[in-house]
Formats: sequence, structure tokens, C-alpha cells
Amino acid sequence: MSWSFEAPLRDMRFVLGHVLDAPAAWAACPAHAELDLDTACAVLEQGARFAAEQLQPLNGPGDRQGCNLDADGRVRTPDGFADAYRAFVEAGWPALAGDPRWGGQGLPLLLDGFLREMLDACNHAWNMYPDLLHGAVHTLAAHAGDELQQRYLPRLVSGEWLAAMALTEPQAGSDLGLLRTRAEPQADGSVRVSGSKIFISGGEHDLSDNIVHLVLCRLPDAAPGTRGLSLALVPRLLPDGSRNAMVCDGLEKKMGLKASATCAMRYEQATGWLVGEPGRGLAAMFVMMNSARLHVALQGLGHAEMAAQNALRYALERRQSRLPGPRAADAGAADPIARHPAMRHVLLGLQAQVEAGRVIAARAALALDLAEHHPDPAVRDAAQARAALLTPLLKAQLTRLGFEGASAALQVFGGYGYVHEYGIEQSVRDARIAMIYEGTNEIQAIDLVQRKLLGDSGTALQALLAECAAEADACLAEPSLEAFGQALREECEAARSGLHALLGLRDPGLVLALAPDVMDALWWLLNTWAFAASARGTLRASDTDAAWREARLERMRYGVDWLLPRARQHWQRVIAGAPALPELRATR
Amino acid sequence: MSWSFEAPLRDMRFVLGHVLDAPAAWAACPAHAELDLDTACAVLEQGARFAAEQLQPLNGPGDRQGCNLDADGRVRTPDGFADAYRAFVEAGWPALAGDPRWGGQGLPLLLDGFLREMLDACNHAWNMYPDLLHGAVHTLAAHAGDELQQRYLPRLVSGEWLAAMALTEPQAGSDLGLLRTRAEPQADGSVRVSGSKIFISGGEHDLSDNIVHLVLCRLPDAAPGTRGLSLALVPRLLPDGSRNAMVCDGLEKKMGLKASATCAMRYEQATGWLVGEPGRGLAAMFVMMNSARLHVALQGLGHAEMAAQNALRYALERRQSRLPGPRAADAGAADPIARHPAMRHVLLGLQAQVEAGRVIAARAALALDLAEHHPDPAVRDAAQARAALLTPLLKAQLTRLGFEGASAALQVFGGYGYVHEYGIEQSVRDARIAMIYEGTNEIQAIDLVQRKLLGDSGTALQALLAECAAEADACLAEPSLEAFGQALREECEAARSGLHALLGLRDPGLVLALAPDVMDALWWLLNTWAFAASARGTLRASDTDAAWREARLERMRYGVDWLLPRARQHWQRVIAGAPALPELRATR
Repeated sequence: MSWSFEAPLRDMRFVLGHVLDAPAAWAACPAHAELDLDTACAVLEQGARFAAEQLQPLNGPGDRQGCNLDADGRVRTPDGFADAYRAFVEAGWPALAGDPRWGGQGLPLLLDGFLREMLDACNHAWNMYPDLLHGAVHTLAAHAGDELQQRYLPRLVSGEWLAAMALTEPQAGSDLGLLRTRAEPQADGSVRVSGSKIFISGGEHDLSDNIVHLVLCRLPDAAPGTRGLSLALVPRLLPDGSRNAMVCDGLEKKMGLKASATCAMRYEQATGWLVGEPGRGLAAMFVMMNSARLHVALQGLGHAEMAAQNALRYALERRQSRLPGPRAADAGAADPIARHPAMRHVLLGLQAQVEAGRVIAARAALALDLAEHHPDPAVRDAAQARAALLTPLLKAQLTRLGFEGASAALQVFGGYGYVHEYGIEQSVRDARIAMIYEGTNEIQAIDLVQRKLLGDSGTALQALLAECAAEADACLAEPSLEAFGQALREECEAARSGLHALLGLRDPGLVLALAPDVMDALWWLLNTWAFAASARGTLRASDTDAAWREARLERMRYGVDWLLPRARQHWQRVIAGAPALPELRATR
Repeated sequence: MSWSFEAPLRDMRFVLGHVLDAPAAWAACPAHAELDLDTACAVLEQGARFAAEQLQPLNGPGDRQGCNLDADGRVRTPDGFADAYRAFVEAGWPALAGDPRWGGQGLPLLLDGFLREMLDACNHAWNMYPDLLHGAVHTLAAHAGDELQQRYLPRLVSGEWLAAMALTEPQAGSDLGLLRTRAEPQADGSVRVSGSKIFISGGEHDLSDNIVHLVLCRLPDAAPGTRGLSLALVPRLLPDGSRNAMVCDGLEKKMGLKASATCAMRYEQATGWLVGEPGRGLAAMFVMMNSARLHVALQGLGHAEMAAQNALRYALERRQSRLPGPRAADAGAADPIARHPAMRHVLLGLQAQVEAGRVIAARAALALDLAEHHPDPAVRDAAQARAALLTPLLKAQLTRLGFEGASAALQVFGGYGYVHEYGIEQSVRDARIAMIYEGTNEIQAIDLVQRKLLGDSGTALQALLAECAAEADACLAEPSLEAFGQALREECEAARSGLHALLGLRDPGLVLALAPDVMDALWWLLNTWAFAASARGTLRASDTDAAWREARLERMRYGVDWLLPRARQHWQRVIAGAPALPELRATR
């Protein structure tokens, strides 16, 4: 059995058409008013073909070959990576959701999100190179001056040039306030940037001629901490075609994602231009945070989908041991392991979480589209708040699912899962990093409670709860969906009490101590909503066959019956009051 | 900060002396009556030194170098592995718990278990080679004829020769009934063994001259399934010094444990001798199951300990971000991440589970010692049943902790955790296999419910519950430990109801569907017992300093307060009745 990708196009169509009713949202936005469901799905079908045919075959070989840094600081990516990227650009994929003003196709981020899930499922390492484009484009579009925009945006939107985000320094990882890279203003309006950055994905490679670095740095006499940070655009190739004074010093040897060049970069009086106001660098970076974090979430979702479908195929073929009870008609000396309860738990749990995760991620992407394109400013604001609320949840929980789901799937393969041929061990290694970069999952939990809940006094969550309560009512109105409606109603009530308790906490240390629980509790609320909304969607989806709908419903029921009970503890602690959280001792 | 090992000798002494009162048990067994706590701890101290000085430095380089198979089928292990093994044998470590009749030192398995934890913590891959000796010795001592015993046991007990277990075939992993390797009886009483085996750890290497393979095989006309299996001893070197007709065909390329040679072996009319009766091969193998599975559990514990202590050291040094609240006296621009609540959760959770896991593993090892050496047959039988009950729990849960704990610790290192230098990513890769081999963790759950609970109508669990209830009473008698006593009493009550419900189930499919819940529920009962018994131990441990005792108590309290609530759901499902577990569908 070989590792392969069957795009979840049926599920994506179902989510667009029958869970989220995306066509209604598109109809309300002038920018997307021409788009219909069939067209959207045709685009996804093309994307699926590109991912499965061009990227998936490069995934295993890319892991084994890795990237190579030569003596001149040039990075060679694995065989086939650059060709695949050229084909990707020629087919117009980077421009899919780009602004038509800069040559983009202006399609919804929702479609772009589904495309990314498939690219990540097939080749996370390869997708690291274009994955940062959207964030860079967004940052420049919002903060750069006209000249920089004219010079860089068209070629970034088309994907002709690629981008890199240069934030981390050895002493400054999660805490960017500690970083030291300097920028000295020049008479011509440019800056000279000097310093060392580490962990720069795609800082150097052979996929594009130019690589546009966005570098967090400090101007002379800048304030300490994050308020003193500025953002500079520092391109590998200067406008006159010469090389800029920046060099890749080394590539990290990593657990996984070996085909993605993780560079240590040295800038030695490199020429750059400020993006946005001096001292407002972090604000400029934050513009791209929601979409960049959603992209990382989709990496996790892609891994989980790939792991789930390949493990299922293996489990249907591999026969080991007889089940208790009467012998099945097709039984040989042993039953397919897919029939064994232990494997059903592993795979149903993974499938249910992948399908719910896809619904939640799509809901966030739709919110980003509405925030950008809806004509009503109140709808735009609410959508922006919704996306901001969902973002840390998706980033932390789907990257966790990507790693834990791949590990769960590895278990299905038994000993074969641990060896290279089968692909799943690479998924586990590749998926692990997404829990760390773009803000560790611990930082997502802090962002959730501090900014997204306490920061707006729970307003965005209240709006979400109202939507969930409406879904619960709709389910309760359908006799066959009563269990879903009941479960969702209970989750809403627990969340209301939990939010009330959280807003009443006065000790910021206690808020931080409870952050992981709040994160998990809200994630299970969202899952319950997704289980319920999907279940109700199956009643409407007359365009898909009955067996498929029944199976989808069954998996959502599995989620409520078997997965949801684990969530109950989390609000409990918030509501009842948290026990003491000891300090760590130096000696044990 | 470099990866290093500080042996948890203080904790081991605490567990021996104040949690389990091992000296009292030793005093009751003639074989160990001379042993006292100081002597036992002195042995552990020597073992710790060997592990830290000889093995730990080889761990990272061994991963990078891996094993090499040459054209003649010879396997070269990484530099230093063979020398370290020679030193290990010369120091007498393999013989530690060996039967004095065969040259062993006759020390308790309890000490041997702690030694193994430390060897695994420092170099899991290296310890794979000697780790199978004990099982092979045990199997031969119980089932082989005199001549085989005389020829092989002394040199296996001393470690001069090593052993390998040859079970798995491509079509037969978890289901050994499907295996096909043939053994043909010869006139001289030997057999000729032919067939292919895969995933044979240490099937070929350069650590010892001889490698004694125990090969599961079928005699001609053997019954199908597991009842037709026999066990043959097939040595690499025949008694006349010539090479046997067996060859290593290939080494697996694995996610981790790269320094452990995982061999594909071909036996071509290789000479061997049956161990035990024809058709009773599996029974002969089962003799070593409890100790072999305990050894695998200790691999998980070793990984978790190593991950916990290295992540703690890093967290105490690494400074990122300021905490809310008044600034600490020693605060620079940022606080050590060890002070951040998110990191405290990660590390306290890991520490509490490691310390509880060590207590439970030690309890099982003590039971194995009592089963072997106690003069009272009733005590021996009860101890045997206790070890049998604890074994699947320890194997599944400590290997899960080894992997998940290493991954949790990786998160503490942030981006540095994902690169090779820091050691933790290797731990994640190395630890993963232990969830699969020696019976997958899913099979452990089935073994637990089918054999260890239903198989003896809950007798062994009832005995365990009585011991737990007594511990709960003892805690309730101490005002400062009331919370522990209360929590343990509640767990006992839940377990009693759960066992009752389980014994009443008539549908074997339902029993299998609930097996993962029963496994988790009982593990949390055991943890609660270990938290309580350890807490009470701190009141008595006047030989350790007060700050250490207070910190140990605090971590046990963290376990009850923050970890235990997650357990509550599991019995719930057993008691309330399980929801339906759908079949997996081929299409999604």
C-alpha cells in the first residue's frame, strides 16, 4: 500500500454548500457575487489535482534529500521543488485570493484555505515557501508606501518573487521585545539593516530569483521592548539587480520538514526600506497574524486529513486477528483491522475531529472574507472579531490535531508505521513544528484569554454563543438531531457560566493558569457546534448520496458520544475556582 | 545548555524506603534477606554513573551515525557501542538480577528495574541490545532442556552472549497465529529452521560473538493458528564455532532508535533446538511477557524522566517575557520561562506523572520479586496476579507518557526543541516505538480487560482496590492529607462500580469498545494511589531535606488537583453504558 492523497472534495463541497451556506455569503459581497458553488468546487478540483500529482510525489524524496547550503551561501532545495513551484506560479495559484488591483484573482480566502489544506496534506515542506506570501502581501498592502507597493506587490501576488519573515533571534523567540537587529536610516530614505536572525523559513532557496524579507529591527535610540520595533523590507536582489548584503549562514538540522530551508540569516548593512511608521513594526506584522495563523492551522488539518485517509486505507487492507462473534462472510484467517474496535476508535476519532476542524477553519476563513468584502460595516466588524476569536483556537488545536492525529494514525500501521516507507512517520515529524512556530500553542492560549476574551469583555464570544444557541435550537427542532441540539445547548450554558467566571477573575496569574482549560473548553464548544451544524447539513445535502450522508452523520454522532465527554472537566475548573498552581523548583 | 542526565537517585531511594517499604519485603524473602536500603542505593548509584558517563554521551552521536549493514550481512553499531557493552559486561550489570545458579547476582528485579530506567533515559537505542537478555534467560530457565540450559544460560546471564526474539513476519505482527516459519525435526534432536522474520531488534550486531535467537516457528503438520507454534533456539554461532545458516537481509530505516539494529532475518535450514514442547511455543514466550513488557514500560519512564529534567533545566535558564504582577528581585528584561504558568503546567504535569509512574512500576517489579521469592505460596500467587494486572497498564501508559511527555517537553524548548542539537527531538522519535512493540498499546488494553479483569472475574483488581482503600484510610487519618484520601476513596468507589458494570457486560464487542476507557480509568486510579502513597511517604521521610519533601508533596497535590479530573469521564462510560461504536466506512 502506498501513501497517496484522495482530496476530500466531497466534504469540502458539503461544508461550503450545506454547513456554512457560503454561496449566500458570497452573494452578499460584491467582490464574490459572481461566484457559485460549482465554480468554487471546480477550482478546488484543479487544486487537488496539482497537489496530488505534482506535490505529493515529492514529499518523501524531499524529506530524504533535504536542503543543501553551498559555500557561497546558496541553498539548493530537493529535486523537483523548483519545477513544481514554477508550475504553481504558471497556473496562477499564488494569485488565487490576491487583490485584483495587484493582479490577483480576488477569489475568497475560504477557497484559498481549502487549497492550502490540500497543498499541506501533500507536501507541508514545499508549501512552506509560498505559504508566507499572503502575509507579506497583506502587510505591504496595509502599511508600505506607494513606491514599495508598486515595486513589490505585483510580483509577490503573482508568486514570481517569494517572501520571508525575519523575526526570531537567538535570545528573542516568543518575546520579540528582546530583539536587537539594527536599522540605520540613510539620506535617501532607505535603511541599512544589520543583525542575525534564526529560524527563517525560506530565507534563502532556489525557487525564485528574489526573496523579499520583512525584517523586525530597531532604529537607533528606539525604545526598549516591543514598542521600539520597526519593520523593514530587505530584498535579496536590489532594484538594480545586484545582491543585497545578506547571507544565509546555516541551515537548521531539524526533526522534520527537512525539505524546507530553515535559515540562519546575517544582514550586514543590508539595504532596506521601512514598512509603516518607525516603532510600529509589530503593529504592521500583526496585520498578517490572523491569516498566517490560520495557514498554520491548515497545515495541521492537512496532516490530520492525510494521516486519517492513509491509515483508513491500510486498516481496510491489513488483516490481523479474528473478532469475537460470528465469522464474517468474507473472513479469511483474520479480519481487516478496520473492524477491530480499537482501530475504529482511533480512526473515527480522527475523522470526526478532522471534519469538525475543517468546518471551524472554514468558518474562520469565511469571517475573514466577510471582514474584507461585506458592504455593511457592522457585519465587517463582527466578522473581524469572529476571525480574531477563532484564530488562536484554530492555530493551537488544529496543529495539535495534526501531530497527535498523525501519531494516532501511525499506531494503525503498527511496526510499519515506524519505518520510512510508509510515510506516516514523516507526517509525525513534519507536523510537530506547527505547534511551535507562528506563536507557540501556549501563546495562543494566552492570546485567547487575554486579548480575545478579557480584551473585549466577552463580546465576540457572546456573539458566537448566540450563533451556537441558534444552531442548537435548529437541531432540537429536528427529532433525529435532538442529541446534537442537547449537547450543544449544554456546551453553550457551560461556556456562558465559564465566561462569567473568567471575567470575574481579578488575579492575572490565575487567568494565565486557567488559559489551557479555557482553550480546550472553547475548542470543544466549537467542535460540538461543528458536529451539530454538520449533522443538520446532512439532512439538506440531497446532492450527495445517502450512504455518504449517513456515514458523515454517524461520525458526528461519534464525536458527541465518545469525544465530547472529555471536554466537561475544563469549564468545571474555571467555574469552581482553580486550585493552586505551584512554582517549579530547581531541584527534584 | 547541553543535554545531560542527573539520576533521580533521591526519588528512587524515597520510593524504595518510604513509599513501598521495600526493605520489609526483602526481609521476608530469603533470597534478598541480606539486602538493605543503603546497599541497594549504592548499587543504583554505580548504575547511574555508568549510564550518565558511558551511555549518555553516545546517544546523540549514535542517532546520527546509525547502524550499518555490509555486503556480508555484518552489522556495525555506532562508534563506542561495543566498547560500552564490554564495560557493561565486565562490571557485571547484566547479571544483576540473574539467578545465582547460572552465575547471577540474585538482586531484586526492583533494583534491576531502576537500573533499566536509567539506561533507557541515557540511551534507549543502546539498551535495546541487553534489554532482551532477561526475557530469553527466563524463557530458557523455565522451558529449555538441561543441555540447552547448561550451554546457554551461564553466558546469557553474564551477558557474554546476547539474545534476540524472532517473532514478527510481514503478514504476522499483532497476530502471531498467521506466521509461517518452518522447523523440521532432525534425527539428532535438532531442528532445521527456515523462514523470514522482520523487525528483529539486535538480530545481528557487533556487541557479542554469539547471538541467541528464540524463533517462533511451526513444525510440519502443526495446527493452524497460535496453537501450532513452537519455539526454537537458533544461535548465530553453532557449538562447533561455525556460523549458522541465518543472515541479516536488511536494516529498517526508522523514525528513531537508529542506533538499534532492526533486522530482517532469513533462516535457511538454520540449526536450532526446540525450547519447551512442540506446539507450546507461545506459552514458552508468555513466561517472559510480564518482565519484557515491564522493561518496555521503563523505556517510556526513562524517556519521560530525561525529558522532564532537561526541559526543567532549560526553563530555569531561558528568559522570555515578563510575568504580570510585581517584578521579581532578580528579573532582567524577562523572567525565566519556568515561572510562566503555561510552562509550570507542562512541567509539573510531566513531573507528577513521572514520579507516580515510577512508584507504580516499582510496585509491579516488587510484585515480580515477591512472586519469585516469597516463602508463602499465597503471597506468591497474589503477587503474580498483581504483576499480571499492572503489566498491561504500565506498558501502555508509561510508553504513552514517554512519547507524549517528550513531546510536551519539546514544547518548552520552543523552536530549539525542533532542531537536533538539543536532544529532545530525538527523544520524541526514539520513544514512539515503545507504544507499538511488545504488544501494541491497543493490545495491552484488550489484555487488561479480557485476561486480567474478566479472566479472573476481577479478583486481582479487588485485591488492588483493598490496598488502595487502606491507603485512602491512612491518608484520611492525617489531617494534612485529607484531599489525597478523599480523592483515592472516590477513585476506588468509581472503580468498584466500573468493575461491576464491566463484569456484567455480555457483548464481547462492547467489552472491546470500552477497553481504552477501562485502561485509562484504572491508570488514574493507580496514579491517585501513587500520589497518595507518595504524599504519605513524605511525612515519614525524615532522611531527606524538608524542602525536597515539600516539593514532592506539592507535585503530588498538583496531580490530584489538575490531572485527576480528566480521569472522571472514563468509568462514566463503562457504568452508564457505552454509546454505539460505528463501523468504519471505506469511503469518506
